[in-house]
Amino acid sequence: MTRHKDPPPFSDAHVRQAHGAGGPAMRALIESVFLAGPSADDPADAEARALDDGAAIPFGDQFLVLTTDAHVVHPVEFPGGDLGRLSVCGVVNDLAMMGACDVLGLTSSVILEEGFEISLLRRLQASVQAACREAGTRILTGDTKVMGRGEVDGVVFSTAGLGVTRRVVRDAGLRPGDTVIVTGTIADHGLAVLGARHDLGLQGDLRSDVAPLNGLIRAALAAGGGHIHAMKDPTRGGVTSALNEMASKSGVGVMLTEAAVPMTAAARAAAEILGIDPLMVANEGKALLGVAPEAVDAVLAALRAHPLGRAAAVIGRVTADEPGRVLLDTGFGTRRLVERDATPLPRIC
Amino acid sequence: MTRHKDPPPFSDAHVRQAHGAGGPAMRALIESVFLAGPSADDPADAEARALDDGAAIPFGDQFLVLTTDAHVVHPVEFPGGDLGRLSVCGVVNDLAMMGACDVLGLTSSVILEEGFEISLLRRLQASVQAACREAGTRILTGDTKVMGRGEVDGVVFSTAGLGVTRRVVRDAGLRPGDTVIVTGTIADHGLAVLGARHDLGLQGDLRSDVAPLNGLIRAALAAGGGHIHAMKDPTRGGVTSALNEMASKSGVGVMLTEAAVPMTAAARAAAEILGIDPLMVANEGKALLGVAPEAVDAVLAALRAHPLGRAAAVIGRVTADEPGRVLLDTGFGTRRLVERDATPLPRIC
Repeated sequence: MTRHKDPPPFSDAHVRQAHGAGGPAMRALIESVFLAGPSADDPADAEARALDDGAAIPFGDQFLVLTTDAHVVHPVEFPGGDLGRLSVCGVVNDLAMMGACDVLGLTSSVILEEGFEISLLRRLQASVQAACREAGTRILTGDTKVMGRGEVDGVVFSTAGLGVTRRVVRDAGLRPGDTVIVTGTIADHGLAVLGARHDLGLQGDLRSDVAPLNGLIRAALAAGGGHIHAMKDPTRGGVTSALNEMASKSGVGVMLTEAAVPMTAAARAAAEILGIDPLMVANEGKALLGVAPEAVDAVLAALRAHPLGRAAAVIGRVTADEPGRVLLDTGFGTRRLVERDATPLPRIC
Repeated sequence: MTRHKDPPPFSDAHVRQAHGAGGPAMRALIESVFLAGPSADDPADAEARALDDGAAIPFGDQFLVLTTDAHVVHPVEFPGGDLGRLSVCGVVNDLAMMGACDVLGLTSSVILEEGFEISLLRRLQASVQAACREAGTRILTGDTKVMGRGEVDGVVFSTAGLGVTRRVVRDAGLRPGDTVIVTGTIADHGLAVLGARHDLGLQGDLRSDVAPLNGLIRAALAAGGGHIHAMKDPTRGGVTSALNEMASKSGVGVMLTEAAVPMTAAARAAAEILGIDPLMVANEGKALLGVAPEAVDAVLAALRAHPLGRAAAVIGRVTADEPGRVLLDTGFGTRRLVERDATPLPRIC
């Protein structure tokens, strides 16, 4: 619930790619434009200022959780998924990260370019429905807008989701002594999209991990309960951005063991060929959990028993030292894992 | 709750402007693409198939109402409003039309073109905040995406809203004998946007009516209670489209008295100059209500006592004859008010 410390200065006159990349420039835009104005110090706006994956609304003895995501991925179809699947999973996962694994329903806004192929739209929509079935939810209502030729590049989906939970989990909840768990291999989504976009011939073994995580997280919460102190999905900006945000908002340090971070051989090779740090690449079917030591074994077992958590691993620990920083233990010493603006990866989700 | 009767056939291979215009082509796209697939006959999908302004979710002894709208209006600033105000009002009004005048919160997805002016974005965001204050709500969470230059024309806002009500009002609830009320003058929004877009020099007295209607509708519901049988806001496709949809879904006829429909002199003149039927022009701050005769006086008085309802008027009545049709009483006989695809008015909202 703490406001992000030291918002970066904001002096841009025009929107840049980095403003959508999930890193410091995006947070600066949000804090200085979207959260500016007369209500900036209104305590009732604390929920928006928390900049969590969604917003929690107390309702009776429960919390309603509301979230939204626009998806502009290019190309719209890629190994392992497509825009339709992504649009459902992005929102379902934001709800799950706040503990709201029971999804009451989704909304879908579709913005289309005149001339867009109806057959492709049907495929995307079939994918939306399949992902909804996996997540145990449905699209309850929607909106359709058409822009002229050249006014939008094909199609944009914007989705909102409503979930419900008795306990809200925050990305700001890390505590010193917690163990950091990742639910599986990293970097698969971003590398699969880049591979498809640039036709790199890497696609063979590279597949996006895009999946709805609410079932997996429900299992983890059943095993770990209140010992799961914090969750976040490492989407845009990857593990680097997510852990830096968690550390900063929680006022703790994180020590990450580089060699413990699970990756497929295909992703490792692709990242090397492309010269991209896999820790900065978007995931769409993974979560980072901060778990109290006494529950780590139970949570790991629950994750690994689920098809989406087989490769779950302990990758770090939370410290009281170095608050707001993430240190990378490389095996040859430590260095700070600095969050940067990932400008070379536009339209990855 | 009835599925729209006789969905028009759908044979298009590509998206056309009419698919976003609020008329028969848009409904055909929605019914044959978005509502197709394995869940098309699932009773649990009845809420989506109702094609109402939003979706109602039973929750305890109340209903949560969820809705979404994308806004692609061009130009983004126009007399009487802008994209920011429109994005809030569009969603608040959809909630109000279902009886959910208490808005728990909104989400905001912003899709930006690289190079978009930050100063304009700040103005739009100030307008979002002002409209939220008028509606007694706030943006709880959001998302920001950036597309490259030429990949989206400036900016698109996609908003979702969550409201709560003890009684849901449906657009399908018209009953024979009901009186049809409009809450004020029509066609102001669409004509103001067109005037600004084409620099027609009409703008002097032409201003969009874009406004949050939840306060007005709360007053009407307090006065009319269960005697208000149906509500709908005549946005894309205007009064013609909204009344045809209400008549068709309710299985009733509507007799509309043309001379009773309130319009400003400026709107009347602009529609004539542009050669556009004002009944087909979008409104963003008006509602159509179907009211039982015994409550008409009380509802009209409540509407007229509110600043946004001063020009409220009775414009028609509901009949058991001619189910699914809207007849226009021109003063020189009647003719059918046929819903057409409003292709000449793209990006009006």
